[in-house]
Amino acid sequence: MIILGLDPGLGTTGWGVIRAGGNRLAHVANGRIATDAKTELGARLVALDDALTSLLAQYRPEAAAVEEVFVNKNPQSTLKLGQARGVVLLGAAKAGLIVGEYAPTLVKKAVVGTGTAEKAQVHAMVARLLPGAKIDGPDAADALAVAICHAHHLGSARRIP
Amino acid sequence: MIILGLDPGLGTTGWGVIRAGGNRLAHVANGRIATDAKTELGARLVALDDALTSLLAQYRPEAAAVEEVFVNKNPQSTLKLGQARGVVLLGAAKAGLIVGEYAPTLVKKAVVGTGTAEKAQVHAMVARLLPGAKIDGPDAADALAVAICHAHHLGSARRIP
Repeated sequence: MIILGLDPGLGTTGWGVIRAGGNRLAHVANGRIATDAKTELGARLVALDDALTSLLAQYRPEAAAVEEVFVNKNPQSTLKLGQARGVVLLGAAKAGLIVGEYAPTLVKKAVVGTGTAEKAQVHAMVARLLPGAKIDGPDAADALAVAICHAHHLGSARRIP
Repeated sequence: MIILGLDPGLGTTGWGVIRAGGNRLAHVANGRIATDAKTELGARLVALDDALTSLLAQYRPEAAAVEEVFVNKNPQSTLKLGQARGVVLLGAAKAGLIVGEYAPTLVKKAVVGTGTAEKAQVHAMVARLLPGAKIDGPDAADALAVAICHAHHLGSARRIP
């Protein structure tokens, strides 16, 4: 099964595609969708949507996953994140994908074995679990981590309420 | 010029279409897009996107406007609002519309003449400025109000940063 992990953001959306079969994982691709902060919001959302549509057409994932959002930051950042996340979830849903959502502790547990791992440790384990992957920065690593988590929880994923 | 005002929300998105020419305003249509809270988020965003796409095809607005968001509420509500707003702004941008954004005080001032008017007063004035309009509840009234505000500020609208 091809799984697309996503780490949505207005400035940068990380993405990672893996193949999961039995208890084997393989890296397919990963990267970042960046939008230009100097352009207006509508154009940035269109750029994000276009890039996601291309990804979905190229890799044809059968499942997708995102991390649950903890909204204890700056409310303006939460609004921006929400706007980007809405576009990403819309694109996935229009492609017929059901998007699994996981708490950050669950993602860490799936990748490192403990829910309290440091971010750097998670990224190092992602690289180790997906040999040969050249990971395009921390957002792509986060996206691959949530894809790995989804592979571990296939069948029991919680849908986004 | 046909102007679409929007009051985005995940549960209910109010919309209102007016025609502005010279210093005359005329009501065209208004309503609400409601999504089912019992369905999952992706499906709700698709329902919102589908309804907005129909509206844009039916009324072919040449301009659109939304109220600026004040994010001093519950952060989970801000995230939900952001997700719906992202879908609405994406749809408008994909239709080639530039979306004006106005502070609530500016909307009140355009409709009532003072930035500190009560909500009920704004709604009453919207009905008076658009004779014959049967207004489909408060979200539709808010959407018509921001469309009226945009009609007053055409040419000087601030783009959403």
